[in-house]
Amino acid sequence: MPDIAGATPRVARAGYKEWDRCDLSYVTFDAGTTVAGVTTQNLCCSAEVDLCRAHLPHGSARALVVNAGNSNAFTGQRGKDAVDAITGQVAAHLNCDVTAIFVSSTGVIGVPLPIDKAQAGLRAVFDAAVCSWEDLTHGIGTTDTFAKGATASAMIDGRKVQIVGIIKGSGMIAPDMATMLGYIFTDAAVDAAFLQQLLSAANQASFSCITVDSDTSTSDTILAFATGKAGNTRLASFEDAGADAFAAALNDVCRQLAHLVVRDGEGAQKFIEIQVTGAVSNDSARRVGMAVANSPLVKTAIAGEDANWGRVVMAVGKAGEPANRDTLSIRFGATLVAHNGLAVADYDEAPVARHLKQKDIEIGVDLGLGSGRATVWTCDLTHGYISINADYRS
Amino acid sequence: MPDIAGATPRVARAGYKEWDRCDLSYVTFDAGTTVAGVTTQNLCCSAEVDLCRAHLPHGSARALVVNAGNSNAFTGQRGKDAVDAITGQVAAHLNCDVTAIFVSSTGVIGVPLPIDKAQAGLRAVFDAAVCSWEDLTHGIGTTDTFAKGATASAMIDGRKVQIVGIIKGSGMIAPDMATMLGYIFTDAAVDAAFLQQLLSAANQASFSCITVDSDTSTSDTILAFATGKAGNTRLASFEDAGADAFAAALNDVCRQLAHLVVRDGEGAQKFIEIQVTGAVSNDSARRVGMAVANSPLVKTAIAGEDANWGRVVMAVGKAGEPANRDTLSIRFGATLVAHNGLAVADYDEAPVARHLKQKDIEIGVDLGLGSGRATVWTCDLTHGYISINADYRS
Repeated sequence: MPDIAGATPRVARAGYKEWDRCDLSYVTFDAGTTVAGVTTQNLCCSAEVDLCRAHLPHGSARALVVNAGNSNAFTGQRGKDAVDAITGQVAAHLNCDVTAIFVSSTGVIGVPLPIDKAQAGLRAVFDAAVCSWEDLTHGIGTTDTFAKGATASAMIDGRKVQIVGIIKGSGMIAPDMATMLGYIFTDAAVDAAFLQQLLSAANQASFSCITVDSDTSTSDTILAFATGKAGNTRLASFEDAGADAFAAALNDVCRQLAHLVVRDGEGAQKFIEIQVTGAVSNDSARRVGMAVANSPLVKTAIAGEDANWGRVVMAVGKAGEPANRDTLSIRFGATLVAHNGLAVADYDEAPVARHLKQKDIEIGVDLGLGSGRATVWTCDLTHGYISINADYRS
Repeated sequence: MPDIAGATPRVARAGYKEWDRCDLSYVTFDAGTTVAGVTTQNLCCSAEVDLCRAHLPHGSARALVVNAGNSNAFTGQRGKDAVDAITGQVAAHLNCDVTAIFVSSTGVIGVPLPIDKAQAGLRAVFDAAVCSWEDLTHGIGTTDTFAKGATASAMIDGRKVQIVGIIKGSGMIAPDMATMLGYIFTDAAVDAAFLQQLLSAANQASFSCITVDSDTSTSDTILAFATGKAGNTRLASFEDAGADAFAAALNDVCRQLAHLVVRDGEGAQKFIEIQVTGAVSNDSARRVGMAVANSPLVKTAIAGEDANWGRVVMAVGKAGEPANRDTLSIRFGATLVAHNGLAVADYDEAPVARHLKQKDIEIGVDLGLGSGRATVWTCDLTHGYISINADYRS
């Protein structure tokens, strides 16, 4: 992953858990860096999420701190005190406003983040050598089985701008273990309000279209930081030259990162793309797709490499969205298996069986009602998921 | 289970699958029997569900036919033709209106019910000996691991009336294998409209409050038949003497049947009761309860006998209902583990661990917002569920 001028990563050991690794990640930004973010819809969100929401409207960032091993969620005033201690210490060190400091934490729910460990960890990371984005990706991970990053670039008025994204998570949530946190760094110059507009739109077609287990985290956070060091004319709207190219590159990085989370879904052996067409609206298509993607019976059928399209019919019918049994068609890979409310008579089972044996599975659902469409992504549900989440004590 | 005067069960072999058992169940009712029913909300419902919905407004029943081994769902005109053939043959045999015939089918989705097997099966069952309710319960089952029935009685103006209920299902749905079908028989005299009112209310607090895997069947059906042979003054409203006692008995049978489905949930090792209090309304409490009951992470934690209350916090927060992190309290068994947004400091872990080792688990969620309350039931999520649904080909 390329360097991003104006963004400097470092990692250190705070020792939030009994493990032999860096668990405090720290990125400083040169003055002038803008920031945008999207956070979990979960009403029981962490103090860190509250902090990001409060600081985002100020639009400028000087530092990001990520703690791994403790989510600090559901910890009341003590959790808030820990976050305030972190932002205060960093703001004093950088001599900047506390609203320019962003904090995330991931790990066990219900245990206040130990302030002494955070403070000692920060003192260590202030003096640490600059590290790579790969090091930072390992630093923010918990039960992730591989480090997840993505890059893209775009030309803005003749200047090449770089985008680097990193993410952690192997379920939408798995409290005590993992939560989705993602960070995007770019050297492009982008107004904070426009960066927020672009990130919110990118989120709708990426992170909002994936599911591992239907459980929404208390800590999910995606933040994007733009240092402006590429020297392009500052982007403030889609009227500006290069804005479309930058938006496309940002969308690309978000989609890559979202897919990496699904590929590392807890126990996942298959990556499943569900393409919904013919819905009454795009929103309706997305909700139908998520009903299919969240169905334990669809997910176990794919795990079993079983062309059980009846379970897809069931999931479409229970989605709570407009659907008509008699105009519904379903496809596995390129093979239409059900059409207009009936099994396709004598469809060729061989290509379906071959498709289901692959690692990447495609399910097509056409509702036959309108022109609404959406694509969502999920993974299969296997014994591995049960083992990770049931075969241990917290 | 006691006989119900005016209701006569029989079973026969139609051979819908390659198995050595009765798979066509048949109950005839004396003239004057009233009927009520509730059916699946799934928009891709079966021709049988369409038929029940069309016949229920007529309010009177002479026969019930249940086919096991083939759900006849998503089979278009051929599925409808099969159902019409069944109702025509039974109506001709009984010399009654076709609207008095009710049909359900359960099993694989997408394969039209073979009309020749149904017709031969009906000819056999017309001549079969009268059987017991237990025999009928076996006849309607598919992958159920035990036969499920419940009884209750009530006094109406000095006459004892009996209620018998039978049900099949080991998931809210598991297409190819199982679907929830339930039948309630009573010798009480009850107007069809009032019976429907009572059944709909009972359904709200029983079948609508259980979940095994969040997947809603294409064929779910509950029908209640009242023969009137007990000789009580016909019940037509709650103004009538004995109506409250009958409603309580009906509620009792519905709740017993609903619990039996959860106890036989696919792969279930634990029965989980979730009591939600302090919600802004009863409906809101039920939706919060169902979010907890459907959370794979809560269900795997219970499977692992792990007091992971952070996962309950997460599920409450994602339910989409009013909730406030800082007034939320959670209880396992009798032990409060989290209160007003914080872990209870130094709560005694011994009784919690003892409670979680039991087969019947109780989780209490108090939202601290209002007086809305609801109780829902589910089972744990185990390797058994994955084995049943992924480790085979349909």
